[in-house]
Amino acid sequence: MENIRMAPEGLWILDQTLLPGEEREILLDSREKMFEAIASLRVRGAPAIGICAGYCLAALARDIRAEDFPGFYAALEQEAAYLRASRPTAVNLGWALDRLLAAARANRDRPLAALPELLLREAEAIHREDKDMCRAISEYGLTLVRDGDGILTHCNAGPLATSQYGTALGPILLGTERGMRFRVFADETRPLLQGARLTSYELQKAGVDVTLICDNMASVVMKQGWVQAVFVGCDRVARNGDTANKIGTSGVAVLAKYYGVPFYVLGPRSTIDLACATGADIPIELRDPEEIRRKFYERPMAPEGVRCYNPAFDVTDAALITAIVTDKGICRPPYEESLPALFR
Amino acid sequence: MENIRMAPEGLWILDQTLLPGEEREILLDSREKMFEAIASLRVRGAPAIGICAGYCLAALARDIRAEDFPGFYAALEQEAAYLRASRPTAVNLGWALDRLLAAARANRDRPLAALPELLLREAEAIHREDKDMCRAISEYGLTLVRDGDGILTHCNAGPLATSQYGTALGPILLGTERGMRFRVFADETRPLLQGARLTSYELQKAGVDVTLICDNMASVVMKQGWVQAVFVGCDRVARNGDTANKIGTSGVAVLAKYYGVPFYVLGPRSTIDLACATGADIPIELRDPEEIRRKFYERPMAPEGVRCYNPAFDVTDAALITAIVTDKGICRPPYEESLPALFR
Repeated sequence: MENIRMAPEGLWILDQTLLPGEEREILLDSREKMFEAIASLRVRGAPAIGICAGYCLAALARDIRAEDFPGFYAALEQEAAYLRASRPTAVNLGWALDRLLAAARANRDRPLAALPELLLREAEAIHREDKDMCRAISEYGLTLVRDGDGILTHCNAGPLATSQYGTALGPILLGTERGMRFRVFADETRPLLQGARLTSYELQKAGVDVTLICDNMASVVMKQGWVQAVFVGCDRVARNGDTANKIGTSGVAVLAKYYGVPFYVLGPRSTIDLACATGADIPIELRDPEEIRRKFYERPMAPEGVRCYNPAFDVTDAALITAIVTDKGICRPPYEESLPALFR
Repeated sequence: MENIRMAPEGLWILDQTLLPGEEREILLDSREKMFEAIASLRVRGAPAIGICAGYCLAALARDIRAEDFPGFYAALEQEAAYLRASRPTAVNLGWALDRLLAAARANRDRPLAALPELLLREAEAIHREDKDMCRAISEYGLTLVRDGDGILTHCNAGPLATSQYGTALGPILLGTERGMRFRVFADETRPLLQGARLTSYELQKAGVDVTLICDNMASVVMKQGWVQAVFVGCDRVARNGDTANKIGTSGVAVLAKYYGVPFYVLGPRSTIDLACATGADIPIELRDPEEIRRKFYERPMAPEGVRCYNPAFDVTDAALITAIVTDKGICRPPYEESLPALFR
């Protein structure tokens, strides 16, 4: 089962809000259902949202009735504006929609009837490129571990958030396909539990030996010598290698340093922001305290009115990162040199 | 409201299983209710269990009808055996019951009618000694921090688990009484959430500025310079200073070392086990995986059948501990010398 798949009858996605209890695909056969699926996080993860949005716009283009290209394009823009509002802060959403709009403009001289098919090709290209990117990261990452290794991961940067292999989980899934055996420890990743709900689900499904732990158990697991490498994803990498990722990542990196375990960040080259000098330039997004106090619980687990500090991510010092694994190659310190070199 | 209090009508305890949502005292006016309260963790924390058990046995002694001391003592032993079975692994439970039995034997020549009152005095002595112990730890601990400091704590070693001040929370509560202001960060402490449910409740109630965080947020909080000291309790301290405490403690200690924050362990001298050479001699208790997968949740948050590793505590290396604060004084490295000196 793929997280996003285009079929003759329309676009199917795996409803991630029901995981891990229930695996249900839903058909997004109206703009309203598409909007709701993105807004309600039924599809989540930056790359997956981009892929989904591309297919959504391509599907909606089929139903546009227009006399000429300006009429077609105006209608397409309207559909894109509607979808864009479903999750305003998701960069990949706008990026994918813009890419389809550009593809339409580039083909303005073609017969109108050919445009929906061309837009679908563009959406498929976005999907394929993401798969290629994940595959490249996975191949590079796989060179860093050996058969039988213990690997610890934090949060979820797997197939559900991307396509096929994912980023941080990519080497594990690719290696497993090739008959390698890893012993993976998945941090549950409070407060939203992506590790419990998604990572352990994905790895279990792929037949990987996975053990779920609470975030505060990473230390004892490393102390016992069970971990030979840490793999995590990234939201943004500064020019000096400082890396923003899901809250808790920096703590895992400190532990890895103390216990002598290599700590690897995996992500596409596009997450490297050379305009950002250091991690100090990356703002920390604060989220709703109720996520800590009561989300997922039967009843609130902290007193009414207690203050909670709930940052969505943290910044890991470059000095704690053994290597940054991208689809264009592996960067090692000094990152001030190795990261810009990826863009030359 | 005290967690345990003896009144003319009988023994009242605060039902900790209802916290933080509801503050309800329950009257333990039968042996069955006493048993159930201990077994169901309505009263919890090693010292609190000991205090409660002492009062329980003293209360039950009042209802013993006997002709002579052997008859009285046989009945008392029977009540003690019943209570002892309520939580077989709780050391303080058996210790307190044995202490009351010894007090009865020491007074075998007194009039039978005087014995219940003498046993109550012994139970009160256990309670008072615990308060004195907590107070001494609090006073010593308070010398290690300054007005305005940020303090991070993990799990719960406060008044609910002991009496009055608690151990790790003692310096905070004592200092607050004296008009000092601390900014406290309480780790929620997965999987049983003692920090969210109990520590943040106790500190909020005492008027302390407390902020609840997920365990994986300790790193970003320390990185921002908000923490000047870490205070944690202890379950057992080895002769070399290695310390067993609630799962996650060792990770906090590694972070504190990395960020240059002093890390203090607080507990009574009785938790120092000179017969235990190092932390390697302390076995790690593994608990039910379902505590991670589904406890407290509306629905299971990890896939059916996924393996979970759920150690109840971990061992913090002595090298990570700045000082061990006991009721008999503060020990600093080398612990091989300072810990045995406490017993001379």
